[in-house]
Amino acid sequence: WDERTHMPPGGAEIRAEQLATLTRVRHERLSSDALGLLLDELRPEAEELPYDSDEASMVRVTTRQWDKARRVPSELRAEIARATSLAEGAWIEAKGGSDFGAFLPHLERNVELKRRYVECFPDADHPYDPLLDDFEPRTTTADVRPVLDELREGLRPLVAAIAERPDAVDSSCLHGSFPIDDQRQLVRGLVADLPLDQGSWRLDTTVHPFATAITTTDIRLTTRYDETYVGAALWSALHEAGHGIYENGIDAALRRTPLCRPVSLGFHESQSRTWENWVGRGRPYIAHIHPHVRDEFPNQFANVDAEDLYR
Amino acid sequence: WDERTHMPPGGAEIRAEQLATLTRVRHERLSSDALGLLLDELRPEAEELPYDSDEASMVRVTTRQWDKARRVPSELRAEIARATSLAEGAWIEAKGGSDFGAFLPHLERNVELKRRYVECFPDADHPYDPLLDDFEPRTTTADVRPVLDELREGLRPLVAAIAERPDAVDSSCLHGSFPIDDQRQLVRGLVADLPLDQGSWRLDTTVHPFATAITTTDIRLTTRYDETYVGAALWSALHEAGHGIYENGIDAALRRTPLCRPVSLGFHESQSRTWENWVGRGRPYIAHIHPHVRDEFPNQFANVDAEDLYR
Repeated sequence: WDERTHMPPGGAEIRAEQLATLTRVRHERLSSDALGLLLDELRPEAEELPYDSDEASMVRVTTRQWDKARRVPSELRAEIARATSLAEGAWIEAKGGSDFGAFLPHLERNVELKRRYVECFPDADHPYDPLLDDFEPRTTTADVRPVLDELREGLRPLVAAIAERPDAVDSSCLHGSFPIDDQRQLVRGLVADLPLDQGSWRLDTTVHPFATAITTTDIRLTTRYDETYVGAALWSALHEAGHGIYENGIDAALRRTPLCRPVSLGFHESQSRTWENWVGRGRPYIAHIHPHVRDEFPNQFANVDAEDLYR
Repeated sequence: WDERTHMPPGGAEIRAEQLATLTRVRHERLSSDALGLLLDELRPEAEELPYDSDEASMVRVTTRQWDKARRVPSELRAEIARATSLAEGAWIEAKGGSDFGAFLPHLERNVELKRRYVECFPDADHPYDPLLDDFEPRTTTADVRPVLDELREGLRPLVAAIAERPDAVDSSCLHGSFPIDDQRQLVRGLVADLPLDQGSWRLDTTVHPFATAITTTDIRLTTRYDETYVGAALWSALHEAGHGIYENGIDAALRRTPLCRPVSLGFHESQSRTWENWVGRGRPYIAHIHPHVRDEFPNQFANVDAEDLYR
């Protein structure tokens, strides 16, 4: 979070080293013989408990993490952390100047390291499986392929039909001139109105929006502002707030345990998209926020009613 | 830094746990048998090198840290980190409401833990010696007492003489109404004008100003703003920038080594006070900043020339 929001550029090189060290130390402990022995001791007891109980889940989830970590050298884990951190700074600079060439060596380095990571799992049916498993535990490339095929089949005619009617909806009210301070105030108010515990979140500005949880009651959201298009900040903030609401909703009793984390990226994304699209682009929510949007930008929305904004 | 500048209050409880864990892990490694053996191996070679060489200093300084850490249980170190972090949040809240009672239990807990820390050093001549040594290595209470006695002897008549002439200097130009955004812009410009590497620092707002270095090229300064007194932000920012200039000046070759840290708090403070008082309250610097101060606050400083501001 700090690296992407507030770190002076001069800090980038050493930050990558600091993250590499922390990652190595963490990985050494996660993959240690000592933790393996503790898990061995607990497993018989855990297996007699209900599958979904916190205790059984804790042992099962930690065993899986331990087992996966054992296959990966700590040095490789550290090198991935270092290369990712260095790439982050390079990407921000390259994006500013639309200079893909400046980013390319970082991309190549990261792909090379991911290949070495994949090689730690020689039993995988597909090279992408160990990577996918990090996001969607126990899901394989073979599982996902038919889902994406089916989606493509359904989406293609839908996209074609939309493309044939480019002027069916008038979105001009979202385009114009929206001072960033006013956008910030609007978005902050809308996020404060969502079911996030008071005093447990903050909203900052980044090149690419993201959300992360330091803990369930310290949620860091970011958004980005486009002075000519108010939609960028608005729906990206709702999307990130959706991620935050999910993390903020994890039982406080699980904090500081291996269960205090999202079950999968797919699940996480389902929550962010629920808030961004099903709530945030839905008629009731648009009717609810319409007066606030109009208060903040009276000129742009003078003749735009809630139904226009919804469409 | 994050805890004091940007952390939502909801994060305080778990942050204290996170810091306690990191402190414990760090202390276990610093006080380990393995590090002791490595130092034993290096010592004969280091002792043949010049005393002030980086290599000899590295072994000497690390040996001293290792030796001191060995005497303190990791659990006590972790508990001090936890109690300090919890006290920080409590202090900020108590200060806001001038509620000493709310802070008292945290103060008592921290004093109790410091006493337990002192008990780890039964050979000390004075209970304060092990604590002082953490700030001023190899300096004892017996060393400091005559210095403070001499200072008191010199300062008492000086303070009394000043108190007899309360109206000798007119400081009214520093008091009035100074919008915080204008103060921030002025102070940022003045700090940018100091010998700090560009892109290697930032300036934030806190209840109590401080400076810290994530690394030599990532310096975090803070100041505080008083709407009725421009001096608070101005000289506290120069003071913290002085700390930052010291850390920014450490040789980059020493980064990520035990030598990449201030030699003592006294030395650190000498640098901050050099910039705050000898530079910042000196005639040449005041003449240099006078036009900027007047540009930012034309009403307050319309009839105040550089010499008035200096006085």
